[in-house]
Amino acid sequence: MRIAVDAMGGDHAPEEIVSGCRRFAAESGTELLLVGASQALAPLVPEGAGDGRLRIYEAPDTVGMDESPAKALRRPRASVAVAVGLVRDGEAEAVVSAGNSGAFMAWAWKGLGTVPGLDRPAIAILVPTLEGPRILLDAGANADCRPANLVEWGLLGSVYAEAVLDLRNPRVGLLNIGSEEGKGNELVRSALAGLRELGDAIHFVGNVEGADVFAGRVDVTLCDGFTGNVVLKVAEGVSELIIGEVKREMRRRPVAMVGGLLAGGALRAMRRRFDKAEYGGAMLVGVNGVCIVGHGHSDARAICNAIAVGERAVKARLLSRISESLAQPAAVRA
Amino acid sequence: MRIAVDAMGGDHAPEEIVSGCRRFAAESGTELLLVGASQALAPLVPEGAGDGRLRIYEAPDTVGMDESPAKALRRPRASVAVAVGLVRDGEAEAVVSAGNSGAFMAWAWKGLGTVPGLDRPAIAILVPTLEGPRILLDAGANADCRPANLVEWGLLGSVYAEAVLDLRNPRVGLLNIGSEEGKGNELVRSALAGLRELGDAIHFVGNVEGADVFAGRVDVTLCDGFTGNVVLKVAEGVSELIIGEVKREMRRRPVAMVGGLLAGGALRAMRRRFDKAEYGGAMLVGVNGVCIVGHGHSDARAICNAIAVGERAVKARLLSRISESLAQPAAVRA
Repeated sequence: MRIAVDAMGGDHAPEEIVSGCRRFAAESGTELLLVGASQALAPLVPEGAGDGRLRIYEAPDTVGMDESPAKALRRPRASVAVAVGLVRDGEAEAVVSAGNSGAFMAWAWKGLGTVPGLDRPAIAILVPTLEGPRILLDAGANADCRPANLVEWGLLGSVYAEAVLDLRNPRVGLLNIGSEEGKGNELVRSALAGLRELGDAIHFVGNVEGADVFAGRVDVTLCDGFTGNVVLKVAEGVSELIIGEVKREMRRRPVAMVGGLLAGGALRAMRRRFDKAEYGGAMLVGVNGVCIVGHGHSDARAICNAIAVGERAVKARLLSRISESLAQPAAVRA
Repeated sequence: MRIAVDAMGGDHAPEEIVSGCRRFAAESGTELLLVGASQALAPLVPEGAGDGRLRIYEAPDTVGMDESPAKALRRPRASVAVAVGLVRDGEAEAVVSAGNSGAFMAWAWKGLGTVPGLDRPAIAILVPTLEGPRILLDAGANADCRPANLVEWGLLGSVYAEAVLDLRNPRVGLLNIGSEEGKGNELVRSALAGLRELGDAIHFVGNVEGADVFAGRVDVTLCDGFTGNVVLKVAEGVSELIIGEVKREMRRRPVAMVGGLLAGGALRAMRRRFDKAEYGGAMLVGVNGVCIVGHGHSDARAICNAIAVGERAVKARLLSRISESLAQPAAVRA
C-alpha cells in the first residue's frame, strides 16, 4: 500500500509532518510519498529513512493556510494538489493533509470526484464519548445542505463506522432539539422522513439530542456542517472551561490542590479525550478516494495517527463499501 | 412589586414550586401570586406564610408537560394561562413558570404580544463562562428564523445584559464557524451584514465560534434557536462525559481516588457551573411582559432563583429599555 502525505501542509510543516511520517514508517509496511519541495524535505529525510519506505515526491508550490479554496484551485503544482493527483492516478491509495482544509477539500472534490450517486461529500470526525470514539458528520464541509444530503450521509456514516470503528450495524441518529416527531427546523424535519424511508439499509434510531452524542447513545450522529462545527467547538470550549475552573479552585484551596495533583492522571485522561491528535484527523467521505483531513495544529503524533486512519480505511475497503451502499435500491429512493 | 408564579408547572409541582416561593418570600419584600388549584395549594401555604406576601390565586386547570402548544392554547383556565393573564391585566409585573415551556411561550406571546417593532421573541439564557455568566439567545424558541431576527435579538440581548447582568456596553457576537467574513451558512452571512448596519446601537464584535461562548469572549451570543439548543445540550453532555471520565479513572487508580476526594470541592464547583438551578431559568425576551421560563426539573432553589431574576428584570426596567432600544432609528433600519 502507498499513502501520499502533503508534507508542506499544516502549522508545523514540514518538520512535524515528516517526523510523523517517520514515526508511522517505523510501525507499518505501508510506503509513504512525502509531497512537497524536495529542497525543504531532503534534509529531513536521510538516506534510507523508514527502511526505504519514505519517498519524497516533488511539488514546488504550497497553498497558504489562509488562501481561499478558489485561489488554491489555481495552483496545480501545490503540494496538496499533487498529493491528491497521486490518488487520482492510482499512485497512492490514500492522501493525508493537515494544511488548509478548504483547499484540500476543493482539490479532493475536483480531482477525485464523488462516489457515484452521491450529491455532496461530508467531513466525518471521531468524537469522544463515554462508550469510546464515535462518528459525527458533517463536521464542517457544508455550512448549508439539503435534507437529501443528511440522508445520504446516513449511509456514508454507517459504512464508515463499520469499516473504521469495526462496529456491527451501527446506530445512526439525527441531531435534533428533541426526540419527538415534529421537533426541529425544516431541514431536520424533512430529513427525518427521508432517513426513515431508507428502511433496513441502515440502523436509524431517529432524533438524538446534543447530550446523546457525547454519552455515546448513537454510533453515528448526522447534522449539517454548520451545526457539526459548532458542536465540536462547543465541546472544546466546555472542556477548557472545566479544566480552567478546576485549576482556579485548586489555587484557592490548598487541600484541593493536593487532591488535584493526586487526581492529575484522571484530569489528564479527560483532557486526552478531547485531544484531536489522538483521533487521527477527520475523513472527507464521499469523494472517490480516501482523504484524511488533519488538524492544522497537527504534530508528529497526530500525523502518524492520521496516516494510520487512512491505512485502516484502505484495508477495510471503505470506498467500495460506500459505493455498494449508495447503489442499493433504498439509497436511490432517497 | 408582585410576581405571578405558575404553581402547577414543572416536574415537581406544586410542592417544590411553593417551597421555592416560600424561600424567596423569606428574603424579598415582593408579593407572590401562586397560581393553581387552591385545593392542592392551600395545604402547602399555611396562614401567614411569607409574612403575608404569598397569596393563592385560583386556576382550576393545568397543562400537561407533553401537551402541544396548540392544545394548551385551548385551556384559558390553566395555571400558566391565568398567570400570564395577571401580567397582561397589570395585576403582576412578571410571571414565572417551570411547566411546559412551549405552552408558556404560546400563552405569553398570545396574551402579552410582542414589544412594538419586534418580529419574534427569543429565549435568552445565562451560560457559564470563564468570566462568569453570560447570555445566549435564542436558546430554543425559534428552530427556524430569518437574518432580521438575529439582528433584532442583538438589540434585545444587549439590553438584557445591561439590565440583568449589569454589564456596560456588552460585547455582542454572532455564533459562526469561523471568525472571517464570508464564513457560515446563508442565515448568518446575511445576519452579519444586518448587525453591522446597527452601527453604534450595540457593541457588535462580529463572528464568534463555539469555544468563544464558554471562554466568555463575548457577553451576548446570537444564534438561531436550533443551534442554541444544540449548544446548551452539548455543553451539558460534555460536562457529564468529563465527570464520568474522572470518576472512572478514580475507580481504576487508588491514588487518583484519594486525589479526587481531596479535589472534590473543585469538581463540585465545576458541576455547579452547569447546574441550571444556579441560573434562575431563562427569559422569554421580546414579549410585552417579563416572563421567566424555569427548567422542568426545577426544585425549590431553582424556582427561588428564577423569581429573583424576574424581580431584577422588573427593577431594572427591562421592558421599557427594550422598547426604547427597538425604537431607535438604527433598529428600524434593520
